[in-house]
Amino acid sequence: MNREWDLLHTPGPTPVPPSVERAMNQPMIGHRGQKCKDLLKEIAPRLKPLFGTSEDVLILSGSGTSALEAAVVNATRPGDEVIVVVAGAFGDRFAKICETYELKVHRIEVEWGEAVDVERVESTLQAFENTKAVFLTHCETSTGVIHPVEEIALRVKEISQALVVVDGVSSIGGVEINMDRSGIDFVVTGSQKAMMLPPGLAFAAVSKYGWEVVEQNDRPRFYLDLRSYRNRLGEGQTPFTPPLSLLFGLSEVLNLLDEEGLKNVYHRHQLMKGMTREAFKALNLPLLVSEEAASATVTSVKPNTFQAEDLRKMAREEFGLILAGGQKHMKGQVFRVGHMGYCRSSQVLQYIGILEIILKRLGHDFTSGAGVAAAQEAYLEIIKEVQEC
Amino acid sequence: MNREWDLLHTPGPTPVPPSVERAMNQPMIGHRGQKCKDLLKEIAPRLKPLFGTSEDVLILSGSGTSALEAAVVNATRPGDEVIVVVAGAFGDRFAKICETYELKVHRIEVEWGEAVDVERVESTLQAFENTKAVFLTHCETSTGVIHPVEEIALRVKEISQALVVVDGVSSIGGVEINMDRSGIDFVVTGSQKAMMLPPGLAFAAVSKYGWEVVEQNDRPRFYLDLRSYRNRLGEGQTPFTPPLSLLFGLSEVLNLLDEEGLKNVYHRHQLMKGMTREAFKALNLPLLVSEEAASATVTSVKPNTFQAEDLRKMAREEFGLILAGGQKHMKGQVFRVGHMGYCRSSQVLQYIGILEIILKRLGHDFTSGAGVAAAQEAYLEIIKEVQEC
Repeated sequence: MNREWDLLHTPGPTPVPPSVERAMNQPMIGHRGQKCKDLLKEIAPRLKPLFGTSEDVLILSGSGTSALEAAVVNATRPGDEVIVVVAGAFGDRFAKICETYELKVHRIEVEWGEAVDVERVESTLQAFENTKAVFLTHCETSTGVIHPVEEIALRVKEISQALVVVDGVSSIGGVEINMDRSGIDFVVTGSQKAMMLPPGLAFAAVSKYGWEVVEQNDRPRFYLDLRSYRNRLGEGQTPFTPPLSLLFGLSEVLNLLDEEGLKNVYHRHQLMKGMTREAFKALNLPLLVSEEAASATVTSVKPNTFQAEDLRKMAREEFGLILAGGQKHMKGQVFRVGHMGYCRSSQVLQYIGILEIILKRLGHDFTSGAGVAAAQEAYLEIIKEVQEC
Repeated sequence: MNREWDLLHTPGPTPVPPSVERAMNQPMIGHRGQKCKDLLKEIAPRLKPLFGTSEDVLILSGSGTSALEAAVVNATRPGDEVIVVVAGAFGDRFAKICETYELKVHRIEVEWGEAVDVERVESTLQAFENTKAVFLTHCETSTGVIHPVEEIALRVKEISQALVVVDGVSSIGGVEINMDRSGIDFVVTGSQKAMMLPPGLAFAAVSKYGWEVVEQNDRPRFYLDLRSYRNRLGEGQTPFTPPLSLLFGLSEVLNLLDEEGLKNVYHRHQLMKGMTREAFKALNLPLLVSEEAASATVTSVKPNTFQAEDLRKMAREEFGLILAGGQKHMKGQVFRVGHMGYCRSSQVLQYIGILEIILKRLGHDFTSGAGVAAAQEAYLEIIKEVQEC
């Protein structure tokens, strides 16, 4: 089946709204001219609410990983002691970047599919008093867990001077975060998840305290030196040629978010999470993650009556429904459904409907229609709660 | 004037062909799925002729500068002695990256607007016998000079073990280069120049000898670690999420280059260079660069009867003709016309025609129509030469 017909439900890249596609599809402009300055000056302040900060949000050209690396090389010096929460493939990536850049890494290993306990971070921090930074993943994309990063940040700040660095790659734009309120020092993300753009842009926001550390940090860095991005942003510029098409698109993404209202955007993601989880429960599919720890952007299932890869293959081949598989040691054990960005409740009904057909073919035991019905009930229930508040 | 009407003639970003815009404007796909693998496997081998190499061409997500930095951090270790030819803003950037990454940098400072002598590189190399790498800029975008990088590489290889690293950002796709023939070890470039794409992709090719050095190099690096890109390319993958829209577009760019034939592409750039230079001479405008040293992709003029910035402003405001100004100490002293990528001889006639009107307004002394006539004569002359060979 042609990709024009695909139903893309991986946890990133995610579908791009038509108006954003149209906005991207514009002639090139000079990146040092007034038009680019006007564009950056229009975009930059509008990114702040997504990070819950009054500080600048910097725009980098690269994959999400470039932003993770930017956080590491700007926040730390070689030899620094750091804590990294590793509860999946992306926590592991953060730890690997830290190890590559010669940090003394204390990993807090968390069972994949579970969220880290605030107390565990606290006790680890007490055990390693010289810790300079704590690295956290907001939504661990490989499992669909959302970690209590704000609560952790508040606790860290109470008892230490350590920086709090958050990977917000598959949460920003889909799940609320408030840097200023919680004292988080770095939040970084990419464009291809709840930000509704193709991959290629990365973002970084840094707290006032974070900037003090960055400014004094003499670790060698050039392309990812956040100081250059901050200095040039004041002039409505980026230090290096930015991916202009994505900036054209980003401006329209911000229009869409404004139009809907960020609060409603976050509610919509909660709604899709609730519908998806209730449906899977009704279909007798074991959810990997508990209710409290589950992310609003991606849901993982660990089937026990069929092979996850068989379901993915059949969904792709017969319906063009593209789901993600497991990563690292979970390869083949789980399938993951992305429901973030340009996605709404009716699409949940659609993919649940498709999955019921596949589950029948796989001989899985469930009542036909039970998944869709549960999603519909969840919809009505959650919508009512929202209207009541 | 709206950007839809602009005539973009900066030396990058450059206009994107309509068929490439259409190709980019496609729905997202999973970056770990078969479609993305098929796409990368189709693209990767077709990039090789542009670099004149049988080695892999790696695809990075970032600005051109990310590729310059990738060359530096993969080719060198802290403390290494290197030579950098600095003949403009981009040679200076290469040197700054080298200095940032703790190399002992010997700069060969060349007058802006001139090409470096092969002999000067040779004697510097003889003076610093421990030199591990020589960093060169193929086309120095800030002046429009093309440096004899192949000749230099051959000489360097004759007399030393040093690596030869070439910034091909504003040459690859417009000017021939042959890594394998000349012994160049690294060529890097970006997408937004003669490659006819928006900014956001970077490319790196490495020689066999270069790979030996890269493999043994223990300098910390993660996002720009070329070993990861090479390992994943074998599986039709990139280590981090690639800018998918640009990959869709790149496939079409390669179709366009195949259709025209690379040899004809390089001839077309020579034709535009010849027409532009002859026109400026006939208009009594002082060219910054000599015939031998001039790049086929960008031409700089250093006017002496008016302000370069006045001409740029008038061209932009009245005709939407976007030219570049000078960089660093040449700010305000020169204007630069990009003629690369999606650009052909008739566009030279167009911008020369426009500039004649502006020059009249500026009170510059020349014969009306002389520029266009000289460009036409150059066209007929160069086309004849090409047909005769």
